[in-house]
Amino acid sequence: MPPVNRTPAPVDDATHVVIIGAGFGGLACAAALGSTNIRVTVIDRNNYHLFVPLLYQVATAALSPADIAQPIRRILSRHPNINVVLGEVVGVDRAAKAVTLADGSVVPYDRLVIATGSSYNYFGHDEWAEVAPGLKTIENARRLRARLLSCFEQAEISEDPARQAALMTAVVVGGGPTGVEMAGAIAELARYTLARDFRRIDPRATRILLVEAGPRILGTFPDELAGYARRALERLGVEVMTGKAVERIEEGAVTIAGRIVPAGTIIWGAGVTASPAGRWLGVETDRAGRIRVAPDLSVPGLDGVYALGDTAMAEGDDGKPLPGLAQVAKQQGEHLGRALEAGIARGAAMPAFRFRNRGNTAIIGRSAAVFDFGHRRLKGWFAWILWAIVHVYLLVGFEKRLLVSLQWLWRYMTYERGARLITADVAQGRTPERPEERETPGARPVPMRRRTSG
Amino acid sequence: MPPVNRTPAPVDDATHVVIIGAGFGGLACAAALGSTNIRVTVIDRNNYHLFVPLLYQVATAALSPADIAQPIRRILSRHPNINVVLGEVVGVDRAAKAVTLADGSVVPYDRLVIATGSSYNYFGHDEWAEVAPGLKTIENARRLRARLLSCFEQAEISEDPARQAALMTAVVVGGGPTGVEMAGAIAELARYTLARDFRRIDPRATRILLVEAGPRILGTFPDELAGYARRALERLGVEVMTGKAVERIEEGAVTIAGRIVPAGTIIWGAGVTASPAGRWLGVETDRAGRIRVAPDLSVPGLDGVYALGDTAMAEGDDGKPLPGLAQVAKQQGEHLGRALEAGIARGAAMPAFRFRNRGNTAIIGRSAAVFDFGHRRLKGWFAWILWAIVHVYLLVGFEKRLLVSLQWLWRYMTYERGARLITADVAQGRTPERPEERETPGARPVPMRRRTSG
Repeated sequence: MPPVNRTPAPVDDATHVVIIGAGFGGLACAAALGSTNIRVTVIDRNNYHLFVPLLYQVATAALSPADIAQPIRRILSRHPNINVVLGEVVGVDRAAKAVTLADGSVVPYDRLVIATGSSYNYFGHDEWAEVAPGLKTIENARRLRARLLSCFEQAEISEDPARQAALMTAVVVGGGPTGVEMAGAIAELARYTLARDFRRIDPRATRILLVEAGPRILGTFPDELAGYARRALERLGVEVMTGKAVERIEEGAVTIAGRIVPAGTIIWGAGVTASPAGRWLGVETDRAGRIRVAPDLSVPGLDGVYALGDTAMAEGDDGKPLPGLAQVAKQQGEHLGRALEAGIARGAAMPAFRFRNRGNTAIIGRSAAVFDFGHRRLKGWFAWILWAIVHVYLLVGFEKRLLVSLQWLWRYMTYERGARLITADVAQGRTPERPEERETPGARPVPMRRRTSG
Repeated sequence: MPPVNRTPAPVDDATHVVIIGAGFGGLACAAALGSTNIRVTVIDRNNYHLFVPLLYQVATAALSPADIAQPIRRILSRHPNINVVLGEVVGVDRAAKAVTLADGSVVPYDRLVIATGSSYNYFGHDEWAEVAPGLKTIENARRLRARLLSCFEQAEISEDPARQAALMTAVVVGGGPTGVEMAGAIAELARYTLARDFRRIDPRATRILLVEAGPRILGTFPDELAGYARRALERLGVEVMTGKAVERIEEGAVTIAGRIVPAGTIIWGAGVTASPAGRWLGVETDRAGRIRVAPDLSVPGLDGVYALGDTAMAEGDDGKPLPGLAQVAKQQGEHLGRALEAGIARGAAMPAFRFRNRGNTAIIGRSAAVFDFGHRRLKGWFAWILWAIVHVYLLVGFEKRLLVSLQWLWRYMTYERGARLITADVAQGRTPERPEERETPGARPVPMRRRTSG
């Protein structure tokens, strides 16, 4: 039996730090406060920390959810001063200095760290979320995986060429890193992994559209890298449409710049909105719902409340808002954790946060990625290898690193994807409905009767 | 790009073999007919073949669903004469010789192989299925995993000792191999994996009851092995109750021999019932719903219809029904596939099936398993190693074998379990409800207020 340390920690009850959210920012903050004598409580609505940058690989059947998720308790278990609570925060009582959970219980705090991230923004069309899921949660990814794979299954048994073509069309809305990664991964899934597995359809004929309203994809990257990414996507057969707005999304069809495109799979990656933490606090937010924070990440006007990551609007050295990247949240969390410790233990003043750019990256597919370090740019095979090394390194837990590395190596050698599951708890009741064939209104799916003998 | 073979196979359309179910039996039958010139269609309601013997490891967070599931298309893709259809069979038209699917489509057959398996039998109490899931599907396993892990999370934040004790009680109904495996795996999860991760509860105090109505557990194994298994379970802290009937199951409580036991997790492994294939065909079945088959596995009175595996009642050399084991289904499938090929290609008569016992096994936990070869018996460490080797060997696909082996090795060294996820699509709406504290009717959960400073 492994050694078990259940000795109560010598925790100072004078100051209680509550951290909401165990994403990159919240976890880094908790770790920086770990094994001190400050009482810390981490609250998250999931029991795991999710490595969101690899979620697109779950959605495209390359990895299992557990490969990129680690229990929060496990990550923090070696710090006896940290409590982990599985719960959904619904509000903050500023006067009483307490957080309210969905089950009605309250958690008082002395310092509050808000690291609640962001979700997809459907620009006033929340009904699109059901039809065109984003990619922020395991449930999103499982659902997209089931939908993608089901479309091929349905196309295989359809007798109607228009319906087959619609089912074998995927539209990715938004040309940021997530959109680029999804479009590339779907192309590789269809062209390589599934190519030999069907008898009546040719998955290599899958049509993949990447639609971006702005003038080019990867808008936050230098022109040179964005151009490379576009060419790499087009080599994979992805149709990149820039300067085209998505006007309407319904089950089975997307209206792009006035044209209705029937599509079995629709994926949303077009914009994010901050968590509702600004409303909980009743403080000023920017247009994306982010809480404006001071240079030390404190929320102006509130005593002992801090915000970081995607839900905070902090300014960089250039006066521009810092981007919504994992590395920003992580650095902010580390900074704030250390600053809180110094402040609580020694009464030190809270220093200002300064972001150091570790490089911005996006992957298109096999041997194709881009890296922007500001002063230096990388693209192609070397960027791809670097991308893989960095992402494996950033995964929490040796076992996950080993499992993901091996699966990537296996996939590299065989083009195989190990997690091609359509599971009923996702698919049931949310089965991809039959796309409407708007461009061929007469063509309706005919009752299937398979070609057989007899 | 990997080579893609899309050349139409030289398939003889004169005879169409339809196989319903891609479990051990159906898949073995399809593989035996693979790469012949006989047209074969395999129909399954899932897109994957599930290695059910390891499902308990998914339910107890040791493996991911994808580790034990392989796409049926992938397994059969090298056989150009085999079509795979994702669909739910709802009936068989004996006169028209056609299978009807849930979406209304029909698949005509010349030979029909029914390999549709079994599900759990709640002995007339189907309402128990919701509260006490069995372990036959990935959805079952995910749901059990979410429920088990959620109980610990809820116990951690409860202030009520009676409620904590109830949440930290798991009742496994049925002392067959599945029940023994689940009880042992839950004990190891609680005592080793979770031991260090909580602050207010001690997961090692988890109470696990294995309830068997018969006089002993592992009723189909020799006395010696069953006795060993019982002692091994008790060493892990499992309370083994034999000769005790479960009289009632409701949310949060099980009535065992007149006594109400509050329990956060209830697992059903007490009995199986065959698939409804007997009803589809309108033929005679035994008490467990199995179709009685002739020695050549044909269904008497029907032309060209065969049944095998858990949904068939075939007799062994001793005149007793063959047990519902994976190895029986697999051997029957191989036999039938070869016999059908010889019959269709050369008009050979259908030979009788003879079962060869490869050994019956059950695992209790680390270093503890039993093997019954009939003439020879094994138990303890060596049986455990053999169990692991056999199960890894039987997994389909090199990648799965490697991944499972590595995860087992990792778990052996660290006691860690990599798949401790509570995912919302399972937990939502099916959250473990609060167990009723029947033995302490006055004690109700009090509104939680965590111990903090202030």
